Amino acid sequence: MAVYTDVEDEELDGFVAEYDIGGVVACKGIAEGVENSNFLLQTETDSFILTIYEKRVNPADLPFFLNLMEHLSGKGILCPTPIKGRDGEALRRLAGKPAAVISFLKGVWHRHPRPEHCAALGQALAQMHLAGLDFPMQRRNDLSIAGWQPLIDATTARADEVSPGLAEEIDTQYRSLMNDWPDDLPSGVIHADLFPDNVFFLGETLSGLIDFYFACTDALAYDLAICLNAWCFEREHEFNITKARRLLQAYRTVRAVAPRELELLPVLARGAALRFLLTRLYDWLNQVEGALVRPKDPLEYLRKLRFHSRVSGPGAYGLD
Amino acid sequence: MAVYTDVEDEELDGFVAEYDIGGVVACKGIAEGVENSNFLLQTETDSFILTIYEKRVNPADLPFFLNLMEHLSGKGILCPTPIKGRDGEALRRLAGKPAAVISFLKGVWHRHPRPEHCAALGQALAQMHLAGLDFPMQRRNDLSIAGWQPLIDATTARADEVSPGLAEEIDTQYRSLMNDWPDDLPSGVIHADLFPDNVFFLGETLSGLIDFYFACTDALAYDLAICLNAWCFEREHEFNITKARRLLQAYRTVRAVAPRELELLPVLARGAALRFLLTRLYDWLNQVEGALVRPKDPLEYLRKLRFHSRVSGPGAYGLD
Repeated sequence: MAVYTDVEDEELDGFVAEYDIGGVVACKGIAEGVENSNFLLQTETDSFILTIYEKRVNPADLPFFLNLMEHLSGKGILCPTPIKGRDGEALRRLAGKPAAVISFLKGVWHRHPRPEHCAALGQALAQMHLAGLDFPMQRRNDLSIAGWQPLIDATTARADEVSPGLAEEIDTQYRSLMNDWPDDLPSGVIHADLFPDNVFFLGETLSGLIDFYFACTDALAYDLAICLNAWCFEREHEFNITKARRLLQAYRTVRAVAPRELELLPVLARGAALRFLLTRLYDWLNQVEGALVRPKDPLEYLRKLRFHSRVSGPGAYGLD
Repeated sequence: MAVYTDVEDEELDGFVAEYDIGGVVACKGIAEGVENSNFLLQTETDSFILTIYEKRVNPADLPFFLNLMEHLSGKGILCPTPIKGRDGEALRRLAGKPAAVISFLKGVWHRHPRPEHCAALGQALAQMHLAGLDFPMQRRNDLSIAGWQPLIDATTARADEVSPGLAEEIDTQYRSLMNDWPDDLPSGVIHADLFPDNVFFLGETLSGLIDFYFACTDALAYDLAICLNAWCFEREHEFNITKARRLLQAYRTVRAVAPRELELLPVLARGAALRFLLTRLYDWLNQVEGALVRPKDPLEYLRKLRFHSRVSGPGAYGLD
């Protein structure tokens, strides 16, 4: 939950006047999202999300994110689409920072998704993967295996403060993943952060995928692995195989998953768990005094990492 | 900026179903307000504010606040009005806490109000005071002079950490105000917290007063004093007599201010400055680790207190 940038009213009026969306009727900071400042902007014509990009986002990546949203929504994927100013530009500046207005999606996210929500997610994820196949831009996944060594370096000295033995366990897992990590899986645009708070539902119907600011080019099955971690564990951290089965089955009704992708799911799921363990650990150890965001528990992802290390194969995820 | 309570989606659906406002279309935590959790709730019929009352609000006071908003909006004051459930009750429970849905007001607040905004405020404040005269409920102002001693007791030992000599200066001011404080001024419902972020404008037109959760029964002129402090000082803390004149003149076109109220304005303004100095000092000295709200600078109000201590009379505020 965060709004890092306060916008002067005159400045906002001038910014919105660059668009064909009518005058400002209301603009409220949203207590969601930890990377950027988000506002629910209501104008005389409609509701929008106004995002001011803060320093955790690399400005050079913004054209990738905005063009991707435009590409996907143009193909019928339910996701925000950037609104362009009268000059045709979607990426603009506000309060001295990069900023964009995107369409507002109706819906609420499920704190405790049920199996049917996992199925809806699986279907939407596969549709997004297919729609992204001809997206012409590329963005390397900085938080895949090549990005873990710097995070390990930055956390290893103090990891045991969080849990005794953690530094060694991370090191062992990382070495094992370095051996096992594939580089030959079908690749394309992945969302890379499709947690429940990024998936909206209206009633029982999936109404949108949001927050494409970790999207990148990587193995499509890695996105599935991230979702298995984010959607298929219960509150006490036990794995729910029914949810995993529904997610994977629904995904496979839309996109055919190759046998090698399925076979490597446990490796990918370990990698996905290590990725979130490392970034959460880093944030935990580097809390800023007076910060407005409570860091998330890294150990939740240690438990998930251990789970995937113990499974005998992809059958553990409900695959036949 | 704060959302302290997370609402489960099923629980929200059930809560909203008690009203005649349609199903939930979106619900986003708002990064504004420090006392309660506020959400912008969009339903199939309209937009609303959903407020969950946190522990800094006394539940026994909620009927006063909600009935007051209903009373004032019924008299044409531009302020939120509570929405009642099908059972006729506006005050309900959500996530185990008291909660209410109120109407959504369009508008944005001015970070740097200009003299014409001060005039609009003065007029609206006077209209609110008149509309509140026949409101039948009473609520004591816990943050008027009787409430300062406990705040002084809780802060005096460490006040000098914030500014050397502060404890003694507060003590001197408090003793002086104990002598000078009037108890015979025209009284009624006051807002008691009408800072710029609680006053919305659409273009140049005042579109609403919000956040009545400090409202109480007290001297009407004390509300004027609070507004002088909140609206008529510039960024470098210098007093802007033009803004004060416009505010007071506009107020007086709606409600006749008695000579004794005018004469005592400097005393009331000192008291209002001490009140916000003390609560800000308390919050400054009692910052909660991991809190989501940055405390406001208490010394801004020390400067205002000193300004009002130096003025020779109400003429300093632009009165003829």
